[in-house]
Amino acid sequence: MAIGYLRRKETFSAAHRLHSPLLNLEENQAIYGKCNHIHGHGHNYHIEITLRGEINQSTGMIFNITELKAIIKKHVLHKLDHKNLDRDLEYFAEIPSTTENLAVFIWTMLYNPIATYQTAVLYEVLIRETEKNVVIYRGE
Amino acid sequence: MAIGYLRRKETFSAAHRLHSPLLNLEENQAIYGKCNHIHGHGHNYHIEITLRGEINQSTGMIFNITELKAIIKKHVLHKLDHKNLDRDLEYFAEIPSTTENLAVFIWTMLYNPIATYQTAVLYEVLIRETEKNVVIYRGE
Amino acid sequence: MAIGYLRRKETFSAAHRLHSPLLNLEENQAIYGKCNHIHGHGHNYHIEITLRGEINQSTGMIFNITELKAIIKKHVLHKLDHKNLDRDLEYFAEIPSTTENLAVFIWTMLYNPIATYQTAVLYEVLIRETEKNVVIYRGE
Amino acid sequence: MAIGYLRRKETFSAAHRLHSPLLNLEENQAIYGKCNHIHGHGHNYHIEITLRGEINQSTGMIFNITELKAIIKKHVLHKLDHKNLDRDLEYFAEIPSTTENLAVFIWTMLYNPIATYQTAVLYEVLIRETEKNVVIYRGE
Amino acid sequence: MAIGYLRRKETFSAAHRLHSPLLNLEENQAIYGKCNHIHGHGHNYHIEITLRGEINQSTGMIFNITELKAIIKKHVLHKLDHKNLDRDLEYFAEIPSTTENLAVFIWTMLYNPIATYQTAVLYEVLIRETEKNVVIYRGE
Amino acid sequence: MAIGYLRRKETFSAAHRLHSPLLNLEENQAIYGKCNHIHGHGHNYHIEITLRGEINQSTGMIFNITELKAIIKKHVLHKLDHKNLDRDLEYFAEIPSTTENLAVFIWTMLYNPIATYQTAVLYEVLIRETEKNVVIYRGE
Repeated sequence: MAIGYLRRKETFSAAHRLHSPLLNLEENQAIYGKCNHIHGHGHNYHIEITLRGEINQSTGMIFNITELKAIIKKHVLHKLDHKNLDRDLEYFAEIPSTTENLAVFIWTMLYNPIATYQTAVLYEVLIRETEKNVVIYRGE
Repeated sequence: MAIGYLRRKETFSAAHRLHSPLLNLEENQAIYGKCNHIHGHGHNYHIEITLRGEINQSTGMIFNITELKAIIKKHVLHKLDHKNLDRDLEYFAEIPSTTENLAVFIWTMLYNPIATYQTAVLYEVLIRETEKNVVIYRGE
Repeated sequence: MAIGYLRRKETFSAAHRLHSPLLNLEENQAIYGKCNHIHGHGHNYHIEITLRGEINQSTGMIFNITELKAIIKKHVLHKLDHKNLDRDLEYFAEIPSTTENLAVFIWTMLYNPIATYQTAVLYEVLIRETEKNVVIYRGE
Repeated sequence: MAIGYLRRKETFSAAHRLHSPLLNLEENQAIYGKCNHIHGHGHNYHIEITLRGEINQSTGMIFNITELKAIIKKHVLHKLDHKNLDRDLEYFAEIPSTTENLAVFIWTMLYNPIATYQTAVLYEVLIRETEKNVVIYRGE
Repeated sequence: MAIGYLRRKETFSAAHRLHSPLLNLEENQAIYGKCNHIHGHGHNYHIEITLRGEINQSTGMIFNITELKAIIKKHVLHKLDHKNLDRDLEYFAEIPSTTENLAVFIWTMLYNPIATYQTAVLYEVLIRETEKNVVIYRGE
Repeated sequence: MAIGYLRRKETFSAAHRLHSPLLNLEENQAIYGKCNHIHGHGHNYHIEITLRGEINQSTGMIFNITELKAIIKKHVLHKLDHKNLDRDLEYFAEIPSTTENLAVFIWTMLYNPIATYQTAVLYEVLIRETEKNVVIYRGE
């Protein structure tokens, strides 16, 4: 019985504006700079979803990749791709749509749908906002 | 006397919505699909600017890369990075902000500032909208 | 009226064995080396399909990317992905399945389906066999 | 005395077919889909081998990279590159050649040859089957 | 209260020669090979700096990326970019400028400047010396 | 009879200093900036060598990749890898080792060894000095 990790990479495009309702205008401008621009901007977000689970002896797999793709498509890509994070998602009505919060959001969307299979658990959500900026969330 | 090519890669993030004023609502929806979404979406655009010119015998260079970076910063990145293409740029008020039109826009912005140096000319503008979709414009 | 280029990247996985019916066993072994191994081997082939055409004034597009994806899927990926090039494709029964011949095959499959749209023509087929080996065919 | 990690990336091409002897034909088809195709398919596998060990004070190295390359070449690449996993390796006669099982196979091949140096231990085997699918094994 | 990781990638170019003062000429030549070449050679080093910290509720951020960039620029890039590691840095006068020792050096330069913010700690320094060789240091 | 292009990618590491004997100290400092640093710096140079030739009907190949690798190894990598361009190569004694001049040097080294095969000609030498700066030379 061996434990391994399975990682799936996906991409989506979304617009957003960094603006926190818990901060005033000057603070928002000072903290987020050009990312606070009133008309928003956008990114190609690259995400890497990692599961941890036992390698099944019959199938030799940790998780069926076809099913994993379907779960990510339904619970993440469908909600985020070609959307405006701030206007189209209620989740970001009260908290700023930073990459950190987006990672927690994706974790929350995926955790249960994966856990119900009882063969693997979500281990890590990684988001590349740009080629140089990356955020990781492991449910800690 | 040798002729060579110098290429510089840059990145910017922008939001936009594909919507043509020359088409009606049904046509816009049919042609652009989810890219026509009312709240817009966004991309990390990767651009590659290529110049063609003689390799200078004294300096061994086609164009000073520091000056090329300054030209791209002033005439392209400053206008596009962290902006909403449709709302912040007059150029896209009457034509849709497709990657094709964006390539022509960048060519138009860079052609003269480079030509004034009289040592090289703009040869190609390439834009990677996503990892899989690329547009090239060579002034044809 | 501006002429531009539109490039789409796709990927497929296939097995093959380099073996030419026009060469004897010793020649095959000498020329293809380990690629001539009797049980075959495989690759993730990365292809880049480039079209050349006018940027349409109404749509701002060279070619509808959704339709281009459908054409590549039907005429290329469906025939090659998760296949054994030598056993599953009649085309490679009499000529070796080198990357060069594969590029010509893909060009032949795509040329007419794209040409029927009368707005753009196939300009280039590029195949990355591995990260280090690339073949390009432009219909010359 | 500092503990660090040394990672080496290598690539190999191999053909295989996903088919488990522990499952019947319908189950194989249902679970592996097009990967169960009778003539097989192939991949460029990208592997990343990570060692964990003390940074030697005299040499400033965790492990001699030239020796590590030789170990990987002898115990992994020589056995897998330009091979058919299912027909050329006895190991995969009775278990399916999934990426998960391939990671465990590579771990098993490398663990002792590295451990005999007594300066570092194998920490992780990572395989990129495609750009989007990755498997990791850490000996758990 | 959620704990996440923030990673920033940067690049610098430096020359060096692998030569340990604790080894004699023959040993240096045997261990480092062509990297011991008298006139030195060079690399584009790609570094990835990872911080671990709480996601702040007001800002939605682990660490202000603008400040992190400034810290890395001042304490790492300014000291290493376009430098000769062996001749320009006192640190490498007595220990060889291997990638392992360079990772420890970067860790040492960054640890306190980041710790003074009291909101996150340095978690990992990763260096890609080439595309195939990577070293990681986590302060162990 | 079809004409195609074959591209091979290789990598080497080298140190250099940008300094032109045709310019005085102030001019050198002004033009090359930190690249003029007295102790030099270094790069991982990524090169892409492209040949143009007929696809041979018997072999299905433009040029034997094994022979191309040997030619590049002997005439380029052996001379440049882990070297100091300015001190180890007579060619750069009198002209600055800019990427442009390096591209012309590589072209000169490869042109005849490839031409002697009479089946293909050198078409392009591309060098990525860094991820963002690229130079191309086509013998013009």
